[in-house]
This record gives sequence, C-alpha cells and structure tokens, in this order.
Amino acid sequence: MATAQEEELPLVLVHRIPNFDFPFKHRLQAQFRLLDPLDSVPPESTHSFISRHAASVRVLLCVDPTPISRDLLSLLPSLQLIVCSSAGVDHVDLIECRRRSIAVTNAGKAFSPDVADLAVGLLIDVLRRVSAGDRYVRAGLWARNGEYPLGFKILLKHQFSNAFGKRVGIVGLGSIGGEIAKRLESFGCAIGYNSRRKKPSVPFPWYKTAYDLAINSDILIVCCALTEETRHIVNKDVMVALGKGGVIINVGRGALIDEKELVQLLVQGELGGAGLDVFENEPDVPEELFSLNNVVLSPHCAVATPECFDALEELITANLKAFFSSKPLQSVVEFD
Amino acid sequence: MATAQEEELPLVLVHRIPNFDFPFKHRLQAQFRLLDPLDSVPPESTHSFISRHAASVRVLLCVDPTPISRDLLSLLPSLQLIVCSSAGVDHVDLIECRRRSIAVTNAGKAFSPDVADLAVGLLIDVLRRVSAGDRYVRAGLWARNGEYPLGFKILLKHQFSNAFGKRVGIVGLGSIGGEIAKRLESFGCAIGYNSRRKKPSVPFPWYKTAYDLAINSDILIVCCALTEETRHIVNKDVMVALGKGGVIINVGRGALIDEKELVQLLVQGELGGAGLDVFENEPDVPEELFSLNNVVLSPHCAVATPECFDALEELITANLKAFFSSKPLQSVVEFD
Repeated sequence: MATAQEEELPLVLVHRIPNFDFPFKHRLQAQFRLLDPLDSVPPESTHSFISRHAASVRVLLCVDPTPISRDLLSLLPSLQLIVCSSAGVDHVDLIECRRRSIAVTNAGKAFSPDVADLAVGLLIDVLRRVSAGDRYVRAGLWARNGEYPLGFKILLKHQFSNAFGKRVGIVGLGSIGGEIAKRLESFGCAIGYNSRRKKPSVPFPWYKTAYDLAINSDILIVCCALTEETRHIVNKDVMVALGKGGVIINVGRGALIDEKELVQLLVQGELGGAGLDVFENEPDVPEELFSLNNVVLSPHCAVATPECFDALEELITANLKAFFSSKPLQSVVEFD
Repeated sequence: MATAQEEELPLVLVHRIPNFDFPFKHRLQAQFRLLDPLDSVPPESTHSFISRHAASVRVLLCVDPTPISRDLLSLLPSLQLIVCSSAGVDHVDLIECRRRSIAVTNAGKAFSPDVADLAVGLLIDVLRRVSAGDRYVRAGLWARNGEYPLGFKILLKHQFSNAFGKRVGIVGLGSIGGEIAKRLESFGCAIGYNSRRKKPSVPFPWYKTAYDLAINSDILIVCCALTEETRHIVNKDVMVALGKGGVIINVGRGALIDEKELVQLLVQGELGGAGLDVFENEPDVPEELFSLNNVVLSPHCAVATPECFDALEELITANLKAFFSSKPLQSVVEFD
C-alpha cells in the first residue's frame, strides 16, 4: 500500500518488460507515484494489475521499446499521455493514440548528440578502417606483414577530384540527423537529405526519395524513425544506386534497411562498406559480416553512455512535470 | 644514361630506403630528372652514388622518414632545398640545415585533414568503445552475454554536469591541431592548447606547458612535431595530471609520449583510455595493450588514404616547381 504522502504524488503507470529497467527510478519516485506491475507483491499479471488501476491512470511511462498495443490501450480509458524512454516509438500503436488523442513523447532529444557522435565515429571507422586496423595490430600482423592497406579519405578536395568533399546523404533529418550534419560539415563533407517534406529552414539539398538521395551521395546515414512507410526504406535499389564505393551507416533501426540485401551486396563487393549499430533481429547479427574488414559492427549502443541516461531522466521528468502542471510537453511525437 | 630531353629537366636527388617508395614517381619524372641511388644499374651504394652527383645536386627529395644526417649533408655542398614527403621532419638534421641555410619543406599541409579525421575517429572510438564493441559482436558475445557495457559520452551538457563539454587539450596547434579543433568544436567540446608560444589569432585558451594543459583537460590529443624539446612531452606527470578518466590520443610520433609510463598507467587503470596511431618502436606495439578494451591501436595510418597521396604529389610538385622558378615555397619548415 502507498503511504499517505505517496498518495499525494501524481500517478504514473510504468510499462516495461523485466529485462528493461531504468537506473533513475528511485529519483523519479521522489516526485511521482510510480505504479509498476513488475514490482507488485504478491506477483500479479500486467493485465490484471493494469485493469485494477485503469480508471486512475492518466500517464504511462514506457521503458525502452516495450510494445504498447491497441489491446493494452483499451485497458486504460483515462490515458492522456505516453512518455517513452526511447528515441523511436515504432513499438507504440500511434494510430490508436491519434484516434484517442493520447499524446506521445519520445526521448530523441536526450539521445541525439550521443547518436550523432556514434554515427560519425562509425563513419570514420569504416572509411579509415580503424577497427580493422586495431584487429591487425592486436593480431601481431603489423610487425609480421608490414603496412596496413590504405583506407578511404573523408575529405576530397584537390585537383584530382571533382567533388568538394564526400557527399553524405542523411535519411531522416530530425534532431539526430541535424546533429550529424552539424558535425560532418566541419569535416568538409557536402550534406544532402531525404525526409517526407522539404525543411524550409535547412540549407542542404532535399531529395524526395532515398533512391534520389543515394544517387547523389557517397555515403548514406540512416537515422529516421521506423514506421510502416520507412521499413526497408534502404532497399536493394537504393543500395545499388549508392554504388560500389558507397558506405552505409545505420544508427536508426535495423529494419530501415533490407538487411538480407545489404549483407549480399557487401559480401559480393557491391558496396564499399557499412557501419551498423542496429540490426533487423538484434542481438543476432548476420555472421557473413563477421569476416568483412570494411564493416564495423556495434551492439546497439548509440545511446549507451552514462551521461545519456542523466539527460534522459531530465527529459522524462520535464515531460511528466509539464503534464501535471498543464504546461507544454518537451518532446511530443507528431502524428501524420 | 639520361636522354638529352631528360638532361634538360631540373635535377632532383631522391633519398629513400628500399621499403619506402612513392606511387607518383612516374609522374614526377615527366617534370624532373630524378636521380635515385636505389635505381642505379649496376647497383651502387648510396654514398658512392651521391658523391658522384654531389656537385650538381641542389634539391633533395626525401621520401618518408629516411634519415638525413650531417654526414649525408656534408656530401652535398650545393644543396639548397630538402623536400620532405612526411609531416614530421625529426629525421632531418635541422640544426645543420639552418647553419647551411638549406630550406626544408614538409608535407603536413597535404596530410593534416586526414590526420585530423583519424584523430577524431580514434577519440570517438575510445570514448564510445567502437572497436571493442565490434570485437564483442564478431565474437558472438552480444547474443550470448547481452548488452555491451556503457561507453563515455563526448558531449556533457546537462544539469548533472558542471562542464560545458569534454575539455580537449591539443598538444601542438599547427595545421593538424587546427583541423582537429575545428572538427571537435562541432561536437560541443571545449578546446585548449599547448604550444611554445601563444597564438594571437587563436581564440582557445593557451597553456604554457603540457602539464598545465593536462590539468585543465579530460582528453589530450598529441599532434606536435617531434624534436629534442618535445620528446616525451607527455611524461608520467602529465598523464597523472590528466587523471583516471583521462584519454590520450596520439597521431604525432610515438616518442612524444613516454610509452613505458603510458602502458603502465593504462594497465593499472590510472588512465581512462588511449587511441594510438604511433608508437615508440614501430611496428612493435607493447603487447600489454592487446588485452585492453579502452585502447584503440592503429598501425600508423593517419595519412594512409589514396587521396592523401594525390595531395602529397601536388604539394611536392608545387614545392619543386616553386624552387626551380624562384618562387616562394609552399610549406617551409621554420627553424627556431
């Protein structure tokens, strides 16, 4: 039972699966009364727990990509807000949320500098073969076999090149894409982007489709949200358009790329390289990639820094406080 | 024997060791008469070859860090210019060059964007454990053991941090250091530097010694020239001043850091991590580093991109042409 003092705090239902917990739960509990089915004593099913509290729940805190289906939503007639701890919200039935006017916030803002840092790191890593070079040294091959083969260069700016710099195409110019563009401009890269609509305030060339963007790019960085429309937005045609020297970086979601085709093109040498933080069937990674030196494989850790979790706590707290004091939410997902 | 046509071309003596060759030799030969002892038929010692041509040699093209000693210089009484294909010129007896007013050009300009790219790549790699994560995935540990441990974050900018961003100290703010600073500013890092003298046109705080810089930095990036003064400029005191969470990146020369102390501090956990492209006894790398996950080891490939060699060819050609037409050299090393 909650104490009288706890009873006074605003009520927030926590939705998570046992694997997913959050380190700042304790601090949130100082400001909100968290109802977490997984903490219930004696143990109770999520369904029964939620049904019992249904009428009073106006806010749901969704930890990591724990699915929020239409069925779950139907148990919560008073729900007004879902606060997600993830950048992507493809695990939430947004159509039902829109229908019922349930607001959804994501945590992209807290994550975007971190994700952008990793995207740039993966890109340099692939182009300059940093991880492969590290393997070469650790295996003792430098002393034995001599110089490591040349990498690519990020900046092309001399008389033998007709390009200003490597052309980087960003698929999805949201907060993450914007942070990536800001960083890569300082390397002398030429930026282009694809998004549903042209963004009036953005100076970079816009391409209507991922295919058009790929034709005009040396590198594709994939960082859009995963929706039914964007699933496999980078398909075989797009990758072939990018060309043999092309490099793909994915810090969005695995299913944004047709992974089977990606693997085949890489194995056949029809793509220059890839830096992948996400995969279609995580944590399973296609084993064909394990032997490729032009590929960098990262275990979905674009947002895995301690400071990132502090920023996440801040953003979640700010959204919850805003809701309970009827102020504007910090990071609302736009339905369209 | 040279043909009559070749005889008319300006004479350039090539100084290299057998391992070091340059891919654009053929193109240079269209514009200059290259004398290369290693090409002589029948084989002839470098000493005897140089002695034979000594009087007519005004220009020496030094390929990679092939040593140029006082003794070698004494064989070339007419020498006026040494064109180096490397960024560092610690292999040249600069004191003797100054005494005899022999100009020396280096190739830092051609290399600096490439070196800066790799420095940033190594930094992100260490902070975000990219290479270590790649090893983790390739070893099949992600699927078996679950999430990879957290990395650091590059940008610190939230209420729980009192720093604006990670403080990056650059040891040696020449053309490479400047390119690094430009890139890291876009990540939100706060830059400081150490160099012999404060640079009036640079907005970043200057620190008189590497020690003072280390005290005020989270990260040290070492990219100054190696001279007798800068040998072991990053000594144990400097590394201890950087602190337990500190990260060191070296894209300069191995001997800028006291490697023995560096290894010991890393092994003992007294340093946060290191990204090293250069080592004191290349290609030998201290084996104690092979098992550390907070270290990224790169086989001296900061300048190893194909485009980089094009830029190098351009710069070398420009320096040679300038000399033979009495115009200003492109990248003169300043003696001081």
